[in-house]
Amino acid sequence: MAYKIPFSGRAHTYTGEEIDVALQAMQHAIPFTQGAYQDEFQERFCEYSRAAHAFALCNATAALELSAQLCRFKPGDEVIIPAHTFTASAYPFLKKGGRINWADIDLHTRVVTPETIRKCITDRTKAVVVVHLYGYAADMPAIMEVARDHGLIVIEDTAQALGSRIEGKLAGTFGDYGVYSFHSHKNITTLGEGGMLTVRDPDVASIIPMLRHNGHCAFDYERERYWIPAMGSVDLPELHGEPLWPSNYCLGEVECALGSKLLERIDRMNQEKRERALRFIDAMGDFPELEFHRVDDDRHNYHLLVARVTNGKRDTIMQMLAEDEGVQCVVQYYPLYRYDLYRKAGQGEAECPNTDDFFDNMISFPFHHMMSDEDFETMIAATRRVLVSLH
Amino acid sequence: MAYKIPFSGRAHTYTGEEIDVALQAMQHAIPFTQGAYQDEFQERFCEYSRAAHAFALCNATAALELSAQLCRFKPGDEVIIPAHTFTASAYPFLKKGGRINWADIDLHTRVVTPETIRKCITDRTKAVVVVHLYGYAADMPAIMEVARDHGLIVIEDTAQALGSRIEGKLAGTFGDYGVYSFHSHKNITTLGEGGMLTVRDPDVASIIPMLRHNGHCAFDYERERYWIPAMGSVDLPELHGEPLWPSNYCLGEVECALGSKLLERIDRMNQEKRERALRFIDAMGDFPELEFHRVDDDRHNYHLLVARVTNGKRDTIMQMLAEDEGVQCVVQYYPLYRYDLYRKAGQGEAECPNTDDFFDNMISFPFHHMMSDEDFETMIAATRRVLVSLH
Repeated sequence: MAYKIPFSGRAHTYTGEEIDVALQAMQHAIPFTQGAYQDEFQERFCEYSRAAHAFALCNATAALELSAQLCRFKPGDEVIIPAHTFTASAYPFLKKGGRINWADIDLHTRVVTPETIRKCITDRTKAVVVVHLYGYAADMPAIMEVARDHGLIVIEDTAQALGSRIEGKLAGTFGDYGVYSFHSHKNITTLGEGGMLTVRDPDVASIIPMLRHNGHCAFDYERERYWIPAMGSVDLPELHGEPLWPSNYCLGEVECALGSKLLERIDRMNQEKRERALRFIDAMGDFPELEFHRVDDDRHNYHLLVARVTNGKRDTIMQMLAEDEGVQCVVQYYPLYRYDLYRKAGQGEAECPNTDDFFDNMISFPFHHMMSDEDFETMIAATRRVLVSLH
Repeated sequence: MAYKIPFSGRAHTYTGEEIDVALQAMQHAIPFTQGAYQDEFQERFCEYSRAAHAFALCNATAALELSAQLCRFKPGDEVIIPAHTFTASAYPFLKKGGRINWADIDLHTRVVTPETIRKCITDRTKAVVVVHLYGYAADMPAIMEVARDHGLIVIEDTAQALGSRIEGKLAGTFGDYGVYSFHSHKNITTLGEGGMLTVRDPDVASIIPMLRHNGHCAFDYERERYWIPAMGSVDLPELHGEPLWPSNYCLGEVECALGSKLLERIDRMNQEKRERALRFIDAMGDFPELEFHRVDDDRHNYHLLVARVTNGKRDTIMQMLAEDEGVQCVVQYYPLYRYDLYRKAGQGEAECPNTDDFFDNMISFPFHHMMSDEDFETMIAATRRVLVSLH
């Protein structure tokens, strides 16, 4: 079925200037990976985010895999993760030996809270993954207090929330690790794939380049000739005496060049998305059966535009929008404990009534930045027509 | 030090047509990852290679990680790997639980042989990694016979040898897994990072998309509505009843579009590199102290141009080329068992006299495709001057 307004697999286009930056790198970057553009992207990301250290990666899952690996779980160690999120927020922590306690979300903000996290803490809890889902920054100041009380490592999955802030401080920079995504769907994308990991601890930061790039490092002594004993060394990175296996998570130079350039535009794009979100929410003001999370400041970048349908008619609305109006809404995020992967991994149990309720009643509207104003207004009118007809 | 002829971190530039293909994808691809360009790249790669199944990946290390994972090593299982290779040929197999038996190379071809492999076989050997190093295809017909005799899984690390053939059959398509790289240094590059895994077994091929993309899959039944129970499923891939953890190894659409296009040019580029290699080798014909591997057919793509210095003066030649002539040669590949990573992993022992001899006497000349003819002739003259002065 061809939709008039599809749920786009891509969020934005590039300006002429951005295309020029990519072209320049494409034609002239030497080397073509692990070079000057990567350094620049990381530096600019640190300036933008005020993070201490930033590392460009091939995708945000790699940033989560690294965060999980750096937790150094021992058998029985637990990690708290919301089940209302994309699967990559969670499975790397299982792979790396953690056991998940699923934290519930708040029904209104759709993210975890200090209270839902605190409920999951046991004497085996080692870490917590906070997901700033849909673009809304969870209450990090209060969550960090809980984490400090219990000595937890805090990973902020900021894949959807680049540029969201709490009192001027960027989401992703409160905890130990900040994970950012430049995937096709995200508010800015580095050619469809890309990620960034920000790190607070300088000891950790010192080994990330090795973890990212096959264990490559310099020799720890001055060499007389650049090829003796070899061009470079390869070592097993260690954190607090514990060896960690490296991987190859490198991001190419063209993506890095583009990422640097897009940082100039992210706040404006977020502002434009927020203005549209508010326009949509307010246009539905006379239909209280669509419950939005309305935030009129930069704590929400409105990566996605979602509502909870409170009258039990979600599926009817979805169907009418799709079939009668050609608007392809989607339903996100299947509670992770319902997926076969997590059930098979012994993680099929949870007490998360809000996670179940929200998923079973939520609707996510097409909300790509590249949607034309005309299509956007068409979607508003279509949604209103459907809601009116159901009254 | 700025070299007149550096050892380039990038192998080739793009034609106007190739840039147009990338630009088109950059401006119009929806989605921007896991889309139609990936399908096309994989199809074209299958046509080009005559492999049964091909999967585009973020880099060749990911292809090696997947191959290693698919070996499903049990404690004590062994894998045979040459130590004269890039580290990514080996460490994924340690990560995934294998123990390495280091195979020696042939001093003339610089790759493993049926004999050096057979020497390493024990009753615990499960797999063998053959590396077609420098672009030369190892003797796969004979190696496959050894593998069949002993029931070994064969991984062909063809990162450097895309397009090299034995009697018309492409390197990488003899064994169970073929690993190809489109890294910055390689004969064709997809913006600096990229890889491909070819697979023979349809059961294995059926789970690679899940392993590559976070365990995503379709529900195994017909759904009435596209969002119920969810937009898609996430499962733990299984091979012969054994669960395997997924990862995120996706390659973006622009890289895939470019990769497809570059396949049209790879055989020509290889031919051009081979012609240059023969020109260089023949120009040094009166200096037998430089021992080249001369192959005048498509079994060698001359990804790199290397020689063994037989008079013990390698370091003097390197130094004179660098300091007197501005030609930046390098020395490759540090025997893996000498690196700290492998020593710490208990893999510091080997009986590989040829691996030691070759590394200690080898020289690798700048040999990027984008080197100008003028620079190439300059390098020939410079090398001859150095060799004459040492006579």
